[in-house]
Amino acid sequence: MSVDTQQAPAGLTDQELATLDAHWRAANYLSVGQIYLMANPLLTEPLRPEHVKPRLLGHWGTSPGLNLVHTHLNRLVKARGLNALCVWGPGHGGPAVLANSWLEGSYTETYPDITRDAAGMARLFKQFSFPGGVPSHVAPETPGSIHEGGELGYSLSHAYGAALDNPGLLVACVIGDGEAETGPLAASWHSNKFLDPVEDGAVLPILHLNGYKIANPTVLSRIPEAELDDLLRGYGHEPIHVTGHDPAAVHRAMAEAMDTAADRIAALQRAAREDGATDRPRWPVIVLRTPKGWTGPAEVDGLPVEGTWRSHQVPLAAVRDNPEHLRQLEQWLRSYRPEELFDERGAPRPDVLACVPEGARRLGATPHANGGLLMRELPMPPLERYAVEVDKPGATLHEPTRVLGELLQDVMAATADRRDFRLVGPDETASNRLQAVYGASGKAWQAAILPVDEHLDRHGRVMEILSEHTCQGWLEGYLLTGRHGLFSCYEAFVHIVDSMVNQHIKWLRTTRRLSWRAPIASLNYLLTSHVWRQDHNGFSHQDPGFVDHILNKSPEAVRVYLPPDANTLLSVADHVLRSRDYVNVVVAGKQPCFDWLSMEEAKAHCARGAGIWEWAGTEDGTREPDVVLGCAGDVPTQEVLAAAQLLRRELPGLAVRVVNVVDIARLLPSEEHPHGMTDFEYDGLFTADKPVIFAYHGYPWLIHRLAYSRTGHHHLHVRGYKEIGTTTTPFDMVVRNDLDRYRLVMDVIDRVPGLAVRSAAVRQRMGDARQRHHVWIREHGTDLPEVADWSWDG
Amino acid sequence: MSVDTQQAPAGLTDQELATLDAHWRAANYLSVGQIYLMANPLLTEPLRPEHVKPRLLGHWGTSPGLNLVHTHLNRLVKARGLNALCVWGPGHGGPAVLANSWLEGSYTETYPDITRDAAGMARLFKQFSFPGGVPSHVAPETPGSIHEGGELGYSLSHAYGAALDNPGLLVACVIGDGEAETGPLAASWHSNKFLDPVEDGAVLPILHLNGYKIANPTVLSRIPEAELDDLLRGYGHEPIHVTGHDPAAVHRAMAEAMDTAADRIAALQRAAREDGATDRPRWPVIVLRTPKGWTGPAEVDGLPVEGTWRSHQVPLAAVRDNPEHLRQLEQWLRSYRPEELFDERGAPRPDVLACVPEGARRLGATPHANGGLLMRELPMPPLERYAVEVDKPGATLHEPTRVLGELLQDVMAATADRRDFRLVGPDETASNRLQAVYGASGKAWQAAILPVDEHLDRHGRVMEILSEHTCQGWLEGYLLTGRHGLFSCYEAFVHIVDSMVNQHIKWLRTTRRLSWRAPIASLNYLLTSHVWRQDHNGFSHQDPGFVDHILNKSPEAVRVYLPPDANTLLSVADHVLRSRDYVNVVVAGKQPCFDWLSMEEAKAHCARGAGIWEWAGTEDGTREPDVVLGCAGDVPTQEVLAAAQLLRRELPGLAVRVVNVVDIARLLPSEEHPHGMTDFEYDGLFTADKPVIFAYHGYPWLIHRLAYSRTGHHHLHVRGYKEIGTTTTPFDMVVRNDLDRYRLVMDVIDRVPGLAVRSAAVRQRMGDARQRHHVWIREHGTDLPEVADWSWDG
Repeated sequence: MSVDTQQAPAGLTDQELATLDAHWRAANYLSVGQIYLMANPLLTEPLRPEHVKPRLLGHWGTSPGLNLVHTHLNRLVKARGLNALCVWGPGHGGPAVLANSWLEGSYTETYPDITRDAAGMARLFKQFSFPGGVPSHVAPETPGSIHEGGELGYSLSHAYGAALDNPGLLVACVIGDGEAETGPLAASWHSNKFLDPVEDGAVLPILHLNGYKIANPTVLSRIPEAELDDLLRGYGHEPIHVTGHDPAAVHRAMAEAMDTAADRIAALQRAAREDGATDRPRWPVIVLRTPKGWTGPAEVDGLPVEGTWRSHQVPLAAVRDNPEHLRQLEQWLRSYRPEELFDERGAPRPDVLACVPEGARRLGATPHANGGLLMRELPMPPLERYAVEVDKPGATLHEPTRVLGELLQDVMAATADRRDFRLVGPDETASNRLQAVYGASGKAWQAAILPVDEHLDRHGRVMEILSEHTCQGWLEGYLLTGRHGLFSCYEAFVHIVDSMVNQHIKWLRTTRRLSWRAPIASLNYLLTSHVWRQDHNGFSHQDPGFVDHILNKSPEAVRVYLPPDANTLLSVADHVLRSRDYVNVVVAGKQPCFDWLSMEEAKAHCARGAGIWEWAGTEDGTREPDVVLGCAGDVPTQEVLAAAQLLRRELPGLAVRVVNVVDIARLLPSEEHPHGMTDFEYDGLFTADKPVIFAYHGYPWLIHRLAYSRTGHHHLHVRGYKEIGTTTTPFDMVVRNDLDRYRLVMDVIDRVPGLAVRSAAVRQRMGDARQRHHVWIREHGTDLPEVADWSWDG
Repeated sequence: MSVDTQQAPAGLTDQELATLDAHWRAANYLSVGQIYLMANPLLTEPLRPEHVKPRLLGHWGTSPGLNLVHTHLNRLVKARGLNALCVWGPGHGGPAVLANSWLEGSYTETYPDITRDAAGMARLFKQFSFPGGVPSHVAPETPGSIHEGGELGYSLSHAYGAALDNPGLLVACVIGDGEAETGPLAASWHSNKFLDPVEDGAVLPILHLNGYKIANPTVLSRIPEAELDDLLRGYGHEPIHVTGHDPAAVHRAMAEAMDTAADRIAALQRAAREDGATDRPRWPVIVLRTPKGWTGPAEVDGLPVEGTWRSHQVPLAAVRDNPEHLRQLEQWLRSYRPEELFDERGAPRPDVLACVPEGARRLGATPHANGGLLMRELPMPPLERYAVEVDKPGATLHEPTRVLGELLQDVMAATADRRDFRLVGPDETASNRLQAVYGASGKAWQAAILPVDEHLDRHGRVMEILSEHTCQGWLEGYLLTGRHGLFSCYEAFVHIVDSMVNQHIKWLRTTRRLSWRAPIASLNYLLTSHVWRQDHNGFSHQDPGFVDHILNKSPEAVRVYLPPDANTLLSVADHVLRSRDYVNVVVAGKQPCFDWLSMEEAKAHCARGAGIWEWAGTEDGTREPDVVLGCAGDVPTQEVLAAAQLLRRELPGLAVRVVNVVDIARLLPSEEHPHGMTDFEYDGLFTADKPVIFAYHGYPWLIHRLAYSRTGHHHLHVRGYKEIGTTTTPFDMVVRNDLDRYRLVMDVIDRVPGLAVRSAAVRQRMGDARQRHHVWIREHGTDLPEVADWSWDG
């Protein structure tokens, strides 16, 4: 659906202007009320100190601008019968969006105790930023929101994510001029080179220049307008300006700007959809310049406030103690003429609501902002179709991510009509060996295409931009509006989105507690090109710490998997793509890797999350092990198996158990993570008293942090990445970090009681092998033939 | 010094063109040689497979462009007698910068065994991307570099950081079109609103559009040139275009572009410095469009390579096994006519070196890229000047960061002439209560200034932009070129630069091992507005995990401090500002906080890093404690002291020890961190067998991860932030996370043997107090009076 189902009006009538202004004043009144009042909501009596909250928290500065935008979006949506969603970048302005939701009724539908009357208004006011109440930002608790505006920078990429594959949706996005200074926001302007005017909806950025951040002017408000226009045109947009401080003039200009933008969007969509135009649209952007803290106190204590950074939070800070502040607050509230806006019961009068659309068209009621309501099950093909044949462990090699690519290709194909699955990545899809997916969908691209290009596709659902931030933002917006996806990323550089994923996990943790929020598809990471195999790039590309970062977060919302081969990767991928409301981190290799488990074994192993690999140890059902070799990750698993093989040959009497861990949270106690093991289970795998040599993919102390409370923890010895790296061979990387097979055997000899003396010669041979490696590699630049040609002979 | 000490030439002579081209061809030859050859460097015999490395690693695609830029920077620097530094954003092109350094001689001066002859050339080739050799990127090992180009996005902010307070320096910055898609790079274009044409040097961005990333076209190469020009003008630049693939034409155009840019920079600097112009300069930017993999194989195996993404890494991948590839490689190498470039000994011929400047003007020899050589001691005033008076612990309150602001003001004042200290932060300097610093320096700002503004200053050294990435990049560039600084940031949002700090720590870890690199000032973070006191913002602003992130990195380069009050913050700040080659993280509060230690005590305590606070416990020198209360961080310290007070009152017979930890790495074993304690020291503080209740500022498991190997670890019980947060009161935050005084007393009762039964009534009272809190706060929205009014009565 295009956005102009009706014709644009020629201009506001005085009556329209009056009702829009009434709506705006009502929203402003309610915003101020939330920041300040805990009683006397309608000012039916003179304001007294005890009506005012003891702790004044919130952000007034951005609120009047947000209220203006909401009011005019209401008008546009209603006039044209649009489906719209708004992303409120200046999410600090929570009071504004809450006020609008309450006015339109969606708030009361979501929270029935916050009724649309004086009693409800009082509760709306008191709950704001009040212990046990609602947060001060546009938050998961806010109807109509898919965006927590606390950490700035992600509004526009969220908006684009929401618009993808939603051809009938208009996604407005208010960008504060503070947020506009952030890197992620700056990068995301170029998202318009990836938005398909045919299959995707429209994004309408509204750059709100109120001039100030917390304590400084903003860059974009202090460059000449011509320079700003250059910038926005350079981003590929056509700017429409609305500037002013006189409400009536701004209303008229804003209504016209909204209409112009909507007409332009409709024309561009029509050209692409009906006339087959393929030139990249130059989408409109609205630049709205209004004063920060507009309509608030002009001066406080002799200093200018309205129109300056001093209105950022609470313009009148001492209302309970300072009678002049109290007087100013009352004057400020009454300036909105609440008696004209609310009837005697406290309900908004009809004029106030004249601009509000109906039902699900209300911004606070759109199901797109509660994406789980719209989400469908992803059609997952049977894994057996992609499984690699494994007659015996370690006899064949596959590149796990390449195998996964075949599965993703079919998921992409199965969603070709539904268009609810996307693969995102920072220019690494092929590098990460997932290129089979291009067989079902090309790469989204609206900029110029040359004959030499491959797989670029104006309607593609693979999205590649060299910005992890933008990838993450797109995917978040896509998932939050009820679709599915996967983010494939170099392991080291996923730290670029550490802070973004923090916010998404916080979002999920909160929405899980909100019964009205339907579960959404999980945010799935495939981390590959990992620490042990960054041969081209070296030290700068080696960092396995994202797992540590993720495991600091709410256990209910985070899952981490380290499948050791192709079939386990398939099983894990199937699981995470079906899951809901998690952040799933999957760490897997792209280099040739031994196939250890058949598909059936892989499924069973992944379902357990950790298990004994009997075939790899000396298990015969009669003996306790003398030592347990634990492993998690593809390279550590290979080194552990090679060590097990060496032990079998060198120390044939030793009882060795091999335990592989796929689901790393299994190591946590069951009280601390839903996937955690009980001590009974843990001891069943690792024993309570035998030495455990654990080879881990990442920083070794993570394993201690997970397992420190286990009975046998003081027998646990972990090897992993110790931040030692350079451009070198795969085996040299594990040797440098003491994770290699020879070192693991030495660890076993050092830790199994009585073995050190008895096996000194074996230990010496292991040390010799490491020495041989060092000499060989300096000369040849390759790994020892015995390592390069190694295979499992179990 | 302005950049045009000589007049620009009217155009290249044929002779100049020939020598520039010779230099470029030599650099290209050496680049290819590094990627491929391990013998026969001068092709004195036909190329055979055994001359070729067994593992071909590296990135050819960007190298010819970097060689072109280097060649022409050489010319410009020499012709005008400039001091210049170049930041090589496409750092993957390591071979290019190494080649140029070898040609100009700086490489041999730095690494004498890599001589400027055939033997040295052979070593130069073999070492590249070879185990035990040098990394494939422009890395710390590369002379003339301050920038590892492996993780993209930071070149331009590094360049600006280098130019700040270096009025005589020209900082060229090559930005790849891949990197240009990243958020941090996109944001950093606006750095020109902060560059002072009087006190700072110039930055010359060179946007290199070779058209492709790893596997995709780039956005900026596929928008119309007019749109790109709009974008660059919108960023505040004046674009100069160089486009082509014919070397001679490109040389002529590039020389002219360089001259035009240098003339324009000189004119802008002259206007500001001599004529007092205060309008923001419109600095030039060069847009260089040349083919990716230029001069490499046009086609390989029937597919186009030169000018496409296929030239990104190693265009001919199978040289050892495929005779046609071998033939193509030889043809490629010989196309540069090495016999014209190098004499029979393998040294570059005079023509090749005609463009190379002398001595420290060579890009590989500039001391600005080895900043420690230029760094001076920071003039630190005596701390006593700022110390708060502490007659007895807990009798007074101060805002620690406000006290620190006074110290920083004087550091800023003492460096007013030297201009080698900067404070950076994302619009939070005042919010973080450091505003005293404005008394000595305003905020750098070159955009429009209005009468209402405060502290904006065209020559200011406080830098505020709402981009943590840009702040970090500026500061890194500033430190790496030999100056000092501090980054003040909200604790939660410092995760935005997780990935940047990873790279900086990797840089420091490497430079510490390079004897020719002089130590630089540490990168100092002040993290405040922390998890426990985000009253205005709530959950989205609560994340104490940066400490965990940092402690995963090389122990030799990372330090973390949690000063519990104003004087300890002063002591820690003094220490970190004097330190070298570290990343120091200081977590401190901005809210009123009890003063516990006098300045003298604070210095002693901080020097120890952790110690018993005898006055806070029941220490009398005769008894072992029954329980140890550990604490780290301002809020946990307050709760521990309140708990100690409760214990003294409620359980007067109990022997309680209070241990405060400032330097969190003290908890690590001495083998694992230079600041770690021996077990003997640790047991002396915490005992080996008594219960330890530890109240920690951040995620509690970090303490376990640090202390798991201690004898008494199974007696250690840690409280901290459990990712439970919202907009609420300070005390409610600690109650929600079980870090409050009442819970700590309950923990003591639960864990001291025999206490549970005996003290059931006390435990009940503690639970009642928590309950009272829950009831009170829902009604009043404030903390219990007994908590709000609490003070230490020791």
